[in-house]
This record gives sequence, structure tokens and C-alpha cells, in this order.
Amino acid sequence: MSQGAIREQTTAADLAETVEAAHRAFLEGRSADPRTRSEWLDSVASALEADAEALVEVASRETHLAEQRLTGELRRSVFQLRLFAAEIRAGEHLDATIDHADPQWGMGPRPDIRRMNVPLGVVGVFGASNFPFAFSVAGGDTASALAAGCAVVHKGHEAHPELAVLTAAAVVRGLEAAGAPTGLFGLVTGREAGIQLVQHPLVKAIGFTGSTAGGRALMDLAAKRPEPIPFYGELGGINAVVVTPSAWQKRRSEVLSQYVGSFTLGMGQFCTKPGLLFVPAGEDEELEQPLREALRGVTRHPLLSEHLAAGYEKAVDAMSSLEGVRTLIPGSFGPAPEPTVLEAEAGAAFADPELLRREMFGPASLVVRYSDDDELLRLVGLLEGQLTTAIQGTADDVSPTPGELTGQLAERLVERSGRVLWNEWPTGVTVSYAQHHGGPYPATSSNTTSVGTAAIRRFLRAVAFQGWPEDRLPEPLRDANPWRVPQRVDGVWKRPEIGQGEAE
Amino acid sequence: MSQGAIREQTTAADLAETVEAAHRAFLEGRSADPRTRSEWLDSVASALEADAEALVEVASRETHLAEQRLTGELRRSVFQLRLFAAEIRAGEHLDATIDHADPQWGMGPRPDIRRMNVPLGVVGVFGASNFPFAFSVAGGDTASALAAGCAVVHKGHEAHPELAVLTAAAVVRGLEAAGAPTGLFGLVTGREAGIQLVQHPLVKAIGFTGSTAGGRALMDLAAKRPEPIPFYGELGGINAVVVTPSAWQKRRSEVLSQYVGSFTLGMGQFCTKPGLLFVPAGEDEELEQPLREALRGVTRHPLLSEHLAAGYEKAVDAMSSLEGVRTLIPGSFGPAPEPTVLEAEAGAAFADPELLRREMFGPASLVVRYSDDDELLRLVGLLEGQLTTAIQGTADDVSPTPGELTGQLAERLVERSGRVLWNEWPTGVTVSYAQHHGGPYPATSSNTTSVGTAAIRRFLRAVAFQGWPEDRLPEPLRDANPWRVPQRVDGVWKRPEIGQGEAE
Repeated sequence: MSQGAIREQTTAADLAETVEAAHRAFLEGRSADPRTRSEWLDSVASALEADAEALVEVASRETHLAEQRLTGELRRSVFQLRLFAAEIRAGEHLDATIDHADPQWGMGPRPDIRRMNVPLGVVGVFGASNFPFAFSVAGGDTASALAAGCAVVHKGHEAHPELAVLTAAAVVRGLEAAGAPTGLFGLVTGREAGIQLVQHPLVKAIGFTGSTAGGRALMDLAAKRPEPIPFYGELGGINAVVVTPSAWQKRRSEVLSQYVGSFTLGMGQFCTKPGLLFVPAGEDEELEQPLREALRGVTRHPLLSEHLAAGYEKAVDAMSSLEGVRTLIPGSFGPAPEPTVLEAEAGAAFADPELLRREMFGPASLVVRYSDDDELLRLVGLLEGQLTTAIQGTADDVSPTPGELTGQLAERLVERSGRVLWNEWPTGVTVSYAQHHGGPYPATSSNTTSVGTAAIRRFLRAVAFQGWPEDRLPEPLRDANPWRVPQRVDGVWKRPEIGQGEAE
Repeated sequence: MSQGAIREQTTAADLAETVEAAHRAFLEGRSADPRTRSEWLDSVASALEADAEALVEVASRETHLAEQRLTGELRRSVFQLRLFAAEIRAGEHLDATIDHADPQWGMGPRPDIRRMNVPLGVVGVFGASNFPFAFSVAGGDTASALAAGCAVVHKGHEAHPELAVLTAAAVVRGLEAAGAPTGLFGLVTGREAGIQLVQHPLVKAIGFTGSTAGGRALMDLAAKRPEPIPFYGELGGINAVVVTPSAWQKRRSEVLSQYVGSFTLGMGQFCTKPGLLFVPAGEDEELEQPLREALRGVTRHPLLSEHLAAGYEKAVDAMSSLEGVRTLIPGSFGPAPEPTVLEAEAGAAFADPELLRREMFGPASLVVRYSDDDELLRLVGLLEGQLTTAIQGTADDVSPTPGELTGQLAERLVERSGRVLWNEWPTGVTVSYAQHHGGPYPATSSNTTSVGTAAIRRFLRAVAFQGWPEDRLPEPLRDANPWRVPQRVDGVWKRPEIGQGEAE
């Protein structure tokens, strides 16, 4: 591992040195061909696999998450690196576009002009505490920034300091083993270092996963820089779920049992936890009994940290004290709390939409009862931006003839969400080509995704080349297409046979 | 033309009404299929063509630009609408991506998840004075926002108020003739209305072309909103051009003559005007004589406005008064100024890099002389973000063997530019698939383009659908692909034969 890449507590001088080293590594590595760069990612994946036992052990101790969950999360992070490696080998991310000179072009003669994506530079990445692998040191932001051709300076999360150092060591070892430039990845720690990272002139973008308050503060810093930079923040999450009247009638206990499973998964410490459930109005009994039954099957674990446990209690207290909110099933607080279910009528939300907008990060959720379609649509209309929303319905809701409620619901949910689910639950985010883990503010700070291959695009910008001789053009823009990447030529996409679908 | 869409001086109440009408039209029109939406754009193009004579006449009176130039610019704007119509008919902008459920997926079973782009909502567009057609009411921002499926509220530029109203009337007439929802396009005027437009909660993105100072102020407003929105600003432009020693030796008078042609084109009132020329050191004579000769061929016109003429004089004065800057060829000031050429040695720029960073909007440019390759590379290293940069060289500079300077120059220019030209000049921006009219800050405020089909992407965001039955999915995401759009299916792009390359 290179000297200075990883530090226990980062001073201003150390931060600057780490960023400068990352910048030098970026300059040295930026023109690497996709195959070479993909080997760097694959090598990081292998290094993580090699250290899996030690990583999971330390993670388990520092985060209190179950070993099985951590093993799965590490597998996911390793898979992600390999998927991104395959994606850049295929050259999808370059968006290579070639317009040959055309004297007949409709607005007047067109020069030869060719565009492709290039990496932004050094990217600052802030890890989250709740996914110590998938959204931390070697998580999605790091993987996508490295795949784009950027260097990464990661600000480690204080909730898993030892794991951060151990993971960073594996990342650095993997990069060096594959011949990547020294300094391409660095770790810094401490609140001050985070602030300096956002403000450093050589840092060209930020990836962040965390709270809305913390994210907004850093986002504002990024916007106020002499040279503002993009801030890709994945912030709060309410993840409202709508249960249709038909599903309530036909699938009530199944829906409530799955709801409990989803909102208590990982002790509710997911940004996709369903924190809000809209169900038809009725007797408390019909809601309470199935919930109590499902809750009996929940295994408790300690929350990620004491800090988080204190924040959770405060958030549930605050929500409970809003006018019209009552505790349907009281849980407990402390290190390993029992789940809490709150309840309110639609009218309370109309009087104070804050009910629908407060996150309780942990194993609590709010059930809001609507009396008719109109009330339900009005409630949905009060939702702020969401990472996900879902409808729990039945075949009747999607039959071609009536189904009007579903159509109207879907329209409103799409407007407010990054991902809209039908009869599925939001927890569990697959890494794939079509994944979109984003959503309007305050779910995220930008119209992008932090999960899936599309995340790579965040760390690229386009450059056009006009009038250059063929052999001085970057490889992806040459007519001969030596890298065999997809090229859009005079408006028509041409994809080489070989290399296509390699990620499969 | 609809009541209330166009106003002479917009009050706060009128602004709100226009934005709300645009929002209603957006909701009504957002699910239109690409063919229908493309007809709206084509109809706007036809309406502009039908009014061409009147539009050019008013533009000529209000902007003092030559009739031929205005006719060409209007043709370009009409072409742009039709190109964008063809692009969305082909469905390129939807980025439809389908991942079928896959129990064997590497990180664990994958659900059925499908992603496509949807329009953002109401877009606020600020027009520029220097391109009264191509970057104003019916310009690139409006065309790309409408193509994306957004509604547009345009803040008219005070430099061409009558033209703004006339153009807006044609846009509205075109939209209504094709059956687009009423209110999809609206015009507002006045500084206050502009500020309110950026702050209105229903406005979801801003397109802006203008000065760095004005753009930054609005950008900061957009960033400070409770819900921050993307601000796509095309701001200042220096557009440095490097003349290699070889070109200076072999093509000097040609290069200087083309330079004069480019920096005086349209009286230097282009954001792509070459405001900076790097040439080898030497006697003033060898520079001055060819410049004087070329300048004799320049036809003068009045500048766009008195306000702009005053700003031009101030900018040239300020640059002239920087230490080490001398006037090589003094021009004049006033309504129709004679061009000015300033000169400085590299040392002056090293002492004060401001020399390389100040825009003089009008027919003036600064020549900076370098004594060797090292000085040239250091000068280029001091450049801020540029819309364009260019190299004027010879075949020797791109021969495979030596050519080191070209490689190093290109690397540094790509880092700082949105478009890099070889032996061409930056003025004249074609509208095509590969165009990129952007560049790092302060050239623009984002990593996007405001010209070319890629501009459409700015006004879209992705939404993923998980687990939905085929017939309730949006058309672009159905396996049956009723709209025949390109779909990436399980990692592999599939493009329908029909509809491909329609824009050709």
C-alpha cells in the first residue's frame, strides 16, 4: 500500500497531499484504454474477495450487522466492480459520436465533428454507515468514478473506521497489482477533511450517501465554490407504499407481513425502507392483529451506532408528537429497539404534510389511512421526492377496463420517484443496467443514479473534436474504431459484433 | 395565440399564472408519443418559416445584425427544431433499458426492472441578445426542452422585445396548430420576472445563455432554492487559439487573416469568438502588417445595443490597463467600433493570469507571444474552462514521429474545453448529433451542451419500473416495443430497423 494514501486522522496538509496525488494519478491514467482500466476494477474486486473473511469480521464488529447480510453485501460490491469493468470494456460509457463533414447538411455545410466522454478528474466520495461495503469505501460511487476514469479520494465514515482502512488497503492493493497509477485511490477521515475535500480546487465532483441535512450542507458548499462542481447526493428516503382497496380486501395479511419484513429488514436502516404505508380506513383491529403477528418473527440486532440509536428515538418521538399521529404498536428504544408502528388518518396529513415527509431511520413506519380514491390521490400529491414508491394491488387494479386508480396513482408516483414498484417491496436494490437509484429532491440532489451501470455517466463530461486528422483523434472516435466501441456515425448507431454483451 | 401567454411587462401574478399554465400543459402533454410530440416541433418550425420575412425584418431593426446573417440564423433554428423532432421520433432520448428478471444474476436474483427517461416539467429559458433566433425565444434551449417533453416559460431578452413577442406568437401558433396543449410555451419579460422564474416551485430546470456574472447570480439562486434545480448556463467565452511554431513559419498570413475573420465575425459578438491567440515571439512588424491588411477587409456594423457597446469599451479599457498589455492595433469605440488588437508577452500572463481570463465581448482580441514550447504549455495551463480551443498547425505537427507538442497541447486543451479544433476556427457552431457546446466552468455551469441533439438530455430524468405487468408499462419499456424505439435488453442494445437514421 502506498505511503500516505490512508490516514487515521487527516490534517489539511495531508488532505491536500492526498488530493494532489490523486490528481497526478488521474493525469497518468486517464488515457488508459477501457480494457486496461477494466483490469484495474477486476483486480480491486479480487483483492476484496481475497480479504473477505477479515473484512466481514471487522464489519460485523463495527456495524453490528448480521454476518450473512455483510457477506451478501460484499459479494454485491465485488459483483458491481466486475459489472462496471465489463461495461467500460464494451465502451458504452464513451457515447462515441461521429458526424462526418457534410456539405449538404440542412442548416449549411457541416464540418467533421466527433464527440466522446472523458473523465472529470478527482472525485470526492462520502461513504454511508448503513452499507459498509456497497455504499462505502469500495461501493457504488467509488466503482463508478474509477470506471469513468476518475481518481477517488474517499472520506471514510466514522462509524466503521477500522473497516474503512482495511477496505482502502484492499482497493489500493488491487489497483497497484494491476498496474494502476499510485494514488488513484486515497482515504481521508474527519469532518474537517470532508469539508476541505468538497472545497479543493482539484476535486471535480462529489458522490455522497447520507442524511438530507448533512448532504444539503455539503451540496451548498459545492455550489458556492469559485468553480461550482456537481454534487451527486443520495439523501433521505420515505419510500411510500400504497395498498389499493382491492389488495386490502384480498391480500391484507400477506401485504402487512411483507411490509413488516421490508421495514424491519436490517433494522430499518435502509434508504429504501418503506417508512409510509397508505391503507384504506377501517378498524384498528384489522391492521393491528396482522402486524403484531408479523412482528413476532422479526429478529432484533443492535443499530449501527449509538449516535444513530439516539437519532432514531428522537425521530420517532418527533413524528409521534405531530398532531393526529398515534402509536399503534409501541416498540422500544436503545441499542436494539423493538419496531414501532405509528398510525394517522389522511386528515392529519392534509392538516400537516410534515407527517409524510419525516424520515425515521430505523425500524419504525407510519400507516396513513385513506377513506376513498380521492383522499389517496391527494395524499400521494403531498409526497416530496422519493427514492422509491410502490403499489400493492391485485389483478383487478391492472385489468385493462377499470384500473383508473392505478393509472392515476402511477402518474403521480412517477412524478415523485426514482423507481416505482408493482407488488414488490423497495428494500433490496439490484445492480444492473436498468437500475435507477435516485429520485427528485430531497431523495437525491440531482437527476442521476448512484446504483447500476448508469452511475458511471455522472463522472464523465463530453468533449467534441473538430477537423482532426484520423490518427490524432482519440481511439473511440476513429473511423477504424480500434477499440471496437459502439459509435453513432452520422446519426446511426453501429455496434461491433465482438465485445457486445460481454457483461452477460 | 392564447390569452396571457405573452406579456409586455410581467407582474408577479402574471409570472405565476404563466408558469401554472405551462405546468398544466406539461401534465396534459407529457405522455404524448414521440411522433405526436415531433409534430408539435415540426409545426413550430413551419410557423417560423411562414413568418420569416417579418421576423428577419424586426430582428434586423432591433439587433443591427446583417439580414443575411439573420436569415441564416433563422434557417438554423428551424433546422434545429426539425432535427430534434426526428431525434425524438427515433426515440434515442428515452434511453429505454430493460433488465428481465434473472435468478442467476451474479449478486443474487434480479427482479424485472426497466428504466426510461421522462421530462422534468416546466423549464425556464433565458435568451441571449447576440443570437436573436438560435439562442433566444425559439432557440436551442426551447427546442430541446420541448423535445424532451417539457413546457417552456421563456424570459425574453430586453435587447429585442418586439422580436421576442413576434417569435413567441409563431411558437404558440405552431404548437396550437399541431394540437399541443395550450400554455406549453409562454413568454415573460423583465428582470424581476426572471428572478421569480428561477425561484418558482413548479420550475424544474433553467436554460441560460449570457454573461458569467449574470449567469452565476441566477445559478446561485437556483442552488439556494428549498428544492435546488439544475441550472444549464452557457456563460463566458475566451476561446484560445494556439498557433504552432511550424504554422507561424509556413502559414502566418493565412492564419492571421482567418483569425481576423473569426474574431470580427458578427462584430465579435459570439460566445465562440477567439479572444486569445498564442503565437511565437518575434518582431511586432511580422504580426502587425498581416493583421492590418486583413482588418481592411472587415465590414463594420453597429453593435447589438448601446449597453453592449459601453460594456465593450469598458472591457477593452480594463484589459489594456493590465500590466504588460499594449495596444498593437488601436480600434475605436461607439456604436460601430473598429476592431482592436492587443498584445502581451507570456511573462505578463504568468505575472497576472487575469490576462487570459477576461472576456471582451465585441471586435477585440489579445495576442500573447510565447518564446518556446515550455512557455506555450504553461500559458495553456493557466486557461480557465473554455467553450472551444483550437490549434493552428501544419502537417509536421501531426506527423507520427515528432508531434510531441501537439499531443501535450491537445491533452491540456481537452482538459479545459468543450470543443477542440484542429486548423479550423471556433465561430460557426453546427447543430448535429456530435456537437458539444459546453466546457468546464466558467465557460458553462454544467457538464452539458446547449447545442446539438445531446442538449435534449438535459431536460430529462430517469425513472425505473420494477415488477410491472407488460401492458401497464410505458410503451418504450414493453417487450412488444410498440413505439419501435431503441431498447437495451439485458445489456444488449436492440434497434428497430424502421425509424433508424430518420434524421438523415
